[in-house]
Amino acid sequence: MTIRYLHTMVRVADLDKTIAFFKMLGLEETRRYDNEGGRFTLVFMTPPGQEECPVELTYNWDGDEGLPSDSRHFGHLAYRVSNIYETCQHLMDNGVTINRPPRDGYMAFVRSPDNISVELLQEGDRLEPQEPWSSMENTGHW
Amino acid sequence: MTIRYLHTMVRVADLDKTIAFFKMLGLEETRRYDNEGGRFTLVFMTPPGQEECPVELTYNWDGDEGLPSDSRHFGHLAYRVSNIYETCQHLMDNGVTINRPPRDGYMAFVRSPDNISVELLQEGDRLEPQEPWSSMENTGHW
Repeated sequence: MTIRYLHTMVRVADLDKTIAFFKMLGLEETRRYDNEGGRFTLVFMTPPGQEECPVELTYNWDGDEGLPSDSRHFGHLAYRVSNIYETCQHLMDNGVTINRPPRDGYMAFVRSPDNISVELLQEGDRLEPQEPWSSMENTGHW
Repeated sequence: MTIRYLHTMVRVADLDKTIAFFKMLGLEETRRYDNEGGRFTLVFMTPPGQEECPVELTYNWDGDEGLPSDSRHFGHLAYRVSNIYETCQHLMDNGVTINRPPRDGYMAFVRSPDNISVELLQEGDRLEPQEPWSSMENTGHW
């Protein structure tokens, strides 16, 4: 018996908003599947060159009353970024709340439009502490 | 700015039980990190040869009252398997409920001990319908 990882699936209430969110992080859309009968769309997004590890966005055309939701068993999607300050600044400039700012130059948490927690980790060594991050308070939880 | 996928994190109430579950599927433990100060353990598990796509298990030593939980925004972890009947049989023999049996020889859903939904998809073409799967009813939701 062999097994291969395919994807992590999250449900989204607004496809364009969620695609925009993951694009801000640097992910690309690699595949899209519209199902007329089931009235849903699947969109796969991955970091460039990492097609093995997509997040699958499931969008139900007739809405999804359970969104946004929260949970304890699912924690987060984690990504490593080349400059955590630049990524967080780019997100903030586009209206995303940095729930756990990278005060340590190493780790940050944000939430997708449907409340999916996303962990960002600095590639390599942590960066030198830098404002406005060093003194930025937490917002909500992650 | 570059970005790399690192992992999908799930919280577990019983580390051994969850490791056993993912091992039944064919995943291997690739990395473990004990944090004495934070009183938690992280265990990374991946399909053989697919170290880029781990599920990260977070185990808090002092328990986690929120587990098991459920959610709508997080959907599932998906894996492709070489023989979906064999995988489901192996799970069932070890006490796992097949929530959505592979009646179509192609797709099944099960739940981890903490209620994480796991989608199993048959590699290549769907298999010929086969008992006991073809007439097995759904159990719960996924």
